[in-house]
Amino acid sequence: MSPPPPVFDHVWLNAHLATMRDDALGIIEDGAVAARDGRIAWIGPRAALPAHDAPVTDCGGAWILPGLIDCHTHLVFGGNRSAEFEMRLGGATYEEIARAGGGILSTMRATRAANDAQLVQAALPRLDALLREGVTTVEIKSGYGLELDAELRQLRAARALGAQRQVSVVTSLLAAHAVPPEYKGRQGDYLRHVVEEILPRAAAEGLADAVDAFCESIAFTPDETATLFTAAKRLGLPVKLHADQLTDGGGAALAAAHGALSADHLERSNAAGIAAMAKAGTVAVLLPGATLMLRETHFPPIAAMREHGCRMALSTDMNPGSSPALSLLLMLNLGCTLFRMTVPEALLGVTRHAAAALGLADRGVLAEGMRCDLALYRIQRPAELCYWLGGNPCAGRVVAGLPA
Amino acid sequence: MSPPPPVFDHVWLNAHLATMRDDALGIIEDGAVAARDGRIAWIGPRAALPAHDAPVTDCGGAWILPGLIDCHTHLVFGGNRSAEFEMRLGGATYEEIARAGGGILSTMRATRAANDAQLVQAALPRLDALLREGVTTVEIKSGYGLELDAELRQLRAARALGAQRQVSVVTSLLAAHAVPPEYKGRQGDYLRHVVEEILPRAAAEGLADAVDAFCESIAFTPDETATLFTAAKRLGLPVKLHADQLTDGGGAALAAAHGALSADHLERSNAAGIAAMAKAGTVAVLLPGATLMLRETHFPPIAAMREHGCRMALSTDMNPGSSPALSLLLMLNLGCTLFRMTVPEALLGVTRHAAAALGLADRGVLAEGMRCDLALYRIQRPAELCYWLGGNPCAGRVVAGLPA
Ligand SMILES: [Zn+2]
Ligand SMILES: [Zn+2]
Repeated sequence: MSPPPPVFDHVWLNAHLATMRDDALGIIEDGAVAARDGRIAWIGPRAALPAHDAPVTDCGGAWILPGLIDCHTHLVFGGNRSAEFEMRLGGATYEEIARAGGGILSTMRATRAANDAQLVQAALPRLDALLREGVTTVEIKSGYGLELDAELRQLRAARALGAQRQVSVVTSLLAAHAVPPEYKGRQGDYLRHVVEEILPRAAAEGLADAVDAFCESIAFTPDETATLFTAAKRLGLPVKLHADQLTDGGGAALAAAHGALSADHLERSNAAGIAAMAKAGTVAVLLPGATLMLRETHFPPIAAMREHGCRMALSTDMNPGSSPALSLLLMLNLGCTLFRMTVPEALLGVTRHAAAALGLADRGVLAEGMRCDLALYRIQRPAELCYWLGGNPCAGRVVAGLPA
Repeated sequence: MSPPPPVFDHVWLNAHLATMRDDALGIIEDGAVAARDGRIAWIGPRAALPAHDAPVTDCGGAWILPGLIDCHTHLVFGGNRSAEFEMRLGGATYEEIARAGGGILSTMRATRAANDAQLVQAALPRLDALLREGVTTVEIKSGYGLELDAELRQLRAARALGAQRQVSVVTSLLAAHAVPPEYKGRQGDYLRHVVEEILPRAAAEGLADAVDAFCESIAFTPDETATLFTAAKRLGLPVKLHADQLTDGGGAALAAAHGALSADHLERSNAAGIAAMAKAGTVAVLLPGATLMLRETHFPPIAAMREHGCRMALSTDMNPGSSPALSLLLMLNLGCTLFRMTVPEALLGVTRHAAAALGLADRGVLAEGMRCDLALYRIQRPAELCYWLGGNPCAGRVVAGLPA
């Protein structure tokens, strides 16, 4: 007697697979993927697919990638800054706007003023724009509340988004994003408030999957950041860092020293910092939307990252000030166009390496045992995902084995 | 007895209108638009809408703009150049690729090899991407056939696209885009072939609404361009020009001297040329997608355009080489971000001034008697159309008075 056919819940075939399991994208032409209990139960060339009796989706020659991962967003906020956008066109810089009490603080006021439902409602179309492109995991930071209640509300809104849509939401507490006006001139006191009250509450309520900070000349010092990170690790929370965006503040090395999951931005990081990140396994998260919109002339040190083997991720940095970016596919193009990333580097940056930036070992690669999160695209070859400027070839998403 | 109610075919209300009739966008808050026989029969504040018995669309507070006009595309072509994109990431320049026989010529080979149906099928998803954002008029150039039959087939494919979708297609014959290999070293002979055979045939078959040329150090000379333009005008066809993109070849002044509808690119135009364009009424068509993807450091002389009152349009330059751009909304952002256009300048650039670049007096502005081509957006203010990077707030299109 022959063995019973393998039990799959669903099978996708007539597709090419970019599994991302190696640096040449791990391509399997004319492949098949089978799901069981939300995980990939089998993957390989269609010709080798075992006999089965599961329902089948014919993908019509589409390409399948791991569901995309947007690993750095500030997606939940009140209002938007299209008026400030017009002001910047008048010549004001990001730093000037921040110093003038605009920038982050204007979003803080609108975020505090929004009720819970309004925060979710405002964020949903932004989230949907990402999902339409094939995103299946998105990180969302707080950091526009800048007080206990509003920070927790932002994180709850992020969790609510994950419940309302077929997407994994990973949260980061970014209470150390800016100093709120009520603590003006008392940055140390605010940082203490974050460490002693906001962080423990967010941890106790299970609202934060990680802790982030903005270490910068106009924000928190390396010492303050270190204090926060130490407290986070005491609570069992991983850390990540907005580092070296406007000045080289040694953020890359600081993140590495704390074993951060990622250091993000890095426009002005030095090579020693990058080497330390590579050694620590800290992922470099690159944010070309902000580079573009701030007309930044310093680019992240890609050459040093390659030299030291520091993994690179790419993300929208979706935020209302420096990067109102609603397209992760566009970041693929900008990563190539602005930063001269190669096509494989860019695609690994929104899959395998983006998963690593979030500490997620169960996704970002198509392999047996991994979550069955898939993105389907009507393209002839993976490079098209980086090549087109705008447009959306996404033909479907699968989240935990279910069409989404 | 009161007069009979006005006869409208349809009315749109509960919308804010950006009519584009003045340089402050001609805003009418809480307005209404009524269509009759494909034209705008009435427009104004909702409170002043005459009594009528036409069907009504409640726009739910959306913003209505004139349907967007993408006035410079090379949308019809065979293949794509995602492989060349990877090559450029390896360091080759656009000019080097062109000189090496890649670039335009690789697309020429793929275009010649495609049959008529394939040309249309390949272009449809690209066109659809533009339509989804609210485009209702699109210009499409030939220029990848570079021989009689293939040039005419490209123009016929453009016409077919206009028949298969609810969109106005305006065609430009761009046989003088590059010299095909069979004329290598005999550029003058090819130009003569264009002037004496391709142009008259395209005109006789009604396939070309205008004649375009690529006047550049690596393409056709000002003298050759002038010869072509003179022939075009003899046939009653308006002209436009790819000018001063890679070098200042005096293209702006040449276009003005021939009363061209538009001169396009203009990255290296001098101020005298811009002044001449303003005087001649020649529209400057700016193409920030190419600027971005070529990492161009010369920007079009916006200051001179403002000073001399030269109208500016914005377009995708959708083409498989230097600007595989499938989003006109993204060009709004890039026009602001890269070129520092103001929000009204950018929005006029895809409406009123884009219409002028195509010689169309019946659209681009919302006013009685104009075509009822509308684009509806779920936004709070028009600046959002420039502010967001990616995403698509388009909530509907109306073409000649009909929902599309
Ligand atoms: Zn950020
Ligand atoms: Zn062009």
